[in-house]
Amino acid sequence: MLAAARELGYAPASTARALARGGTGVLGLTMTTYGDLPVPYTEIPYYAQLTLGAMAAAHKRGYLLQVMPSSMSPWMWLNTPMDGVIHVDPRAEDPVRSLLRERGIPMVCEGRPPQPHWGDAWVDTDYEAGLHLLLDHLTQSGARRIGLSLPLHDDAYPDLIAHAYRFWCDKHGMPALVEEYAPLPDPFAAEQDAVSRLLDHDPSPDAVVGVYSDSGHNILAAARRHGLRVPRDLLVACVSEDPDYATTTPPVTTLSLDPDRVGAEAVDLLIAVINARSGVDRHRLVQPVLLPRRSTRRAGKMPSK
Amino acid sequence: MLAAARELGYAPASTARALARGGTGVLGLTMTTYGDLPVPYTEIPYYAQLTLGAMAAAHKRGYLLQVMPSSMSPWMWLNTPMDGVIHVDPRAEDPVRSLLRERGIPMVCEGRPPQPHWGDAWVDTDYEAGLHLLLDHLTQSGARRIGLSLPLHDDAYPDLIAHAYRFWCDKHGMPALVEEYAPLPDPFAAEQDAVSRLLDHDPSPDAVVGVYSDSGHNILAAARRHGLRVPRDLLVACVSEDPDYATTTPPVTTLSLDPDRVGAEAVDLLIAVINARSGVDRHRLVQPVLLPRRSTRRAGKMPSK
Repeated sequence: MLAAARELGYAPASTARALARGGTGVLGLTMTTYGDLPVPYTEIPYYAQLTLGAMAAAHKRGYLLQVMPSSMSPWMWLNTPMDGVIHVDPRAEDPVRSLLRERGIPMVCEGRPPQPHWGDAWVDTDYEAGLHLLLDHLTQSGARRIGLSLPLHDDAYPDLIAHAYRFWCDKHGMPALVEEYAPLPDPFAAEQDAVSRLLDHDPSPDAVVGVYSDSGHNILAAARRHGLRVPRDLLVACVSEDPDYATTTPPVTTLSLDPDRVGAEAVDLLIAVINARSGVDRHRLVQPVLLPRRSTRRAGKMPSK
Repeated sequence: MLAAARELGYAPASTARALARGGTGVLGLTMTTYGDLPVPYTEIPYYAQLTLGAMAAAHKRGYLLQVMPSSMSPWMWLNTPMDGVIHVDPRAEDPVRSLLRERGIPMVCEGRPPQPHWGDAWVDTDYEAGLHLLLDHLTQSGARRIGLSLPLHDDAYPDLIAHAYRFWCDKHGMPALVEEYAPLPDPFAAEQDAVSRLLDHDPSPDAVVGVYSDSGHNILAAARRHGLRVPRDLLVACVSEDPDYATTTPPVTTLSLDPDRVGAEAVDLLIAVINARSGVDRHRLVQPVLLPRRSTRRAGKMPSK
């Protein structure tokens, strides 16, 4: 047993300190909730990578990360000791947010809360930089009318995307072509219909951008339905972490939000908040990364390899 | 608050029962340990997917899953209440296994323990079926001398793979060509050297199989060093969950161990062990899945699309 203890190593100093102070050494991570509707977020690449990135960062700092299910009950918060919580994708009137606030549990939001309060701490994507990267790339590939397929949802994400898109269009004298859709109950059909409406615009768009992980598949399907070839007749891109886009026909250009980094920043900020450190930046933006693929290669231009 | 509680839904029945019985409703998941050497297992696709698969299964059953870091201290076990633990990849003389056993914590192993005890409960891959799938596929693609690049390590995995490989070679009257390597401190150089030694055999192999996630990259690198073209001069395959093999040059055939399913089975078995259910199968084999890609396409045979 002593030999085992030796081989098991030493407690990282930060957690030893947390325990000495009466902390639990445990950080929580929770999605927002949709009540009894479970969200299979470990299967959605963005949330899966965010979770693993936050876990790796917590372990490096000597903390455990307790990941809560999306459809959970208040008792879980009462029975699960933790020093603070990362709250992922807060919605408007978010019951998880209210509960954490009422109980005075230190909290960091992943994604800006739609209803900000003084003292909020959050990590989010720099959407303005991301849309700039993506829309500039499409323009360089020849696009002049870029459509946006936009979900209606009560977290801040669609609004921030739409704002960054309109800002870029204004700045570049390009038309803003937006079709909205309600992602529930059938996100695939709803987005394909929204893209169809975009493609029916006159003049029609020469590029379409989607903002959810499955958007690329939905835009490709809608393009096929309209008899359009990608990228010859239409450029296609979406915000996604899904590696499957490397092997679709054609492979689809994606904007990655770098969820590993977002998770690590959220852990870093939460530990600062728990320890009431002053002088830390409580609003942090992570830079997205563009992964250009064949779906946005300029029509008529030969591939260089 | 009441409205929030309502929207947060109800406690799943199984956890309500666990709590009523005095359980914690928390399952642990832990890698084996390498003492103070941290293993970045959330970045290794197999362990990342295993973790997420186990987490999804635990949440579905109304449990939380507490994932422990690989280099941890005994105090973490004393301070982290849990009903039972999934122990991933037990090694020979495993200190985590000894500690769990001494404390009487219900335990399920992911991967057969090298030193079995009566009453062990484990989930593992059906390696015999997996090697059968993979080696038959290589034979159908024309391979007659299949080399195996084999790591030396004190968990059961390399032994089980080597055993299944030799069994298949005997059965099919094929030569067994094995080169071993020590994966630490530099797994890339060590495996590339092992593959080089395989390729120096006379007559040389017409296919090489690796068993770790990076093996495909290492075999491709060694083949390049020997001036061999893949798949024309050499077929290449490895056991891996890494989606990057869909886009290597050429894309590499992989055997997937279905870690989502392994994680879900481990959770199911652990809950049965915690509840002392009789009549459950305590040794469970998960079937692997072959993903054929261009690295094993028969030389001279035109692709069908």
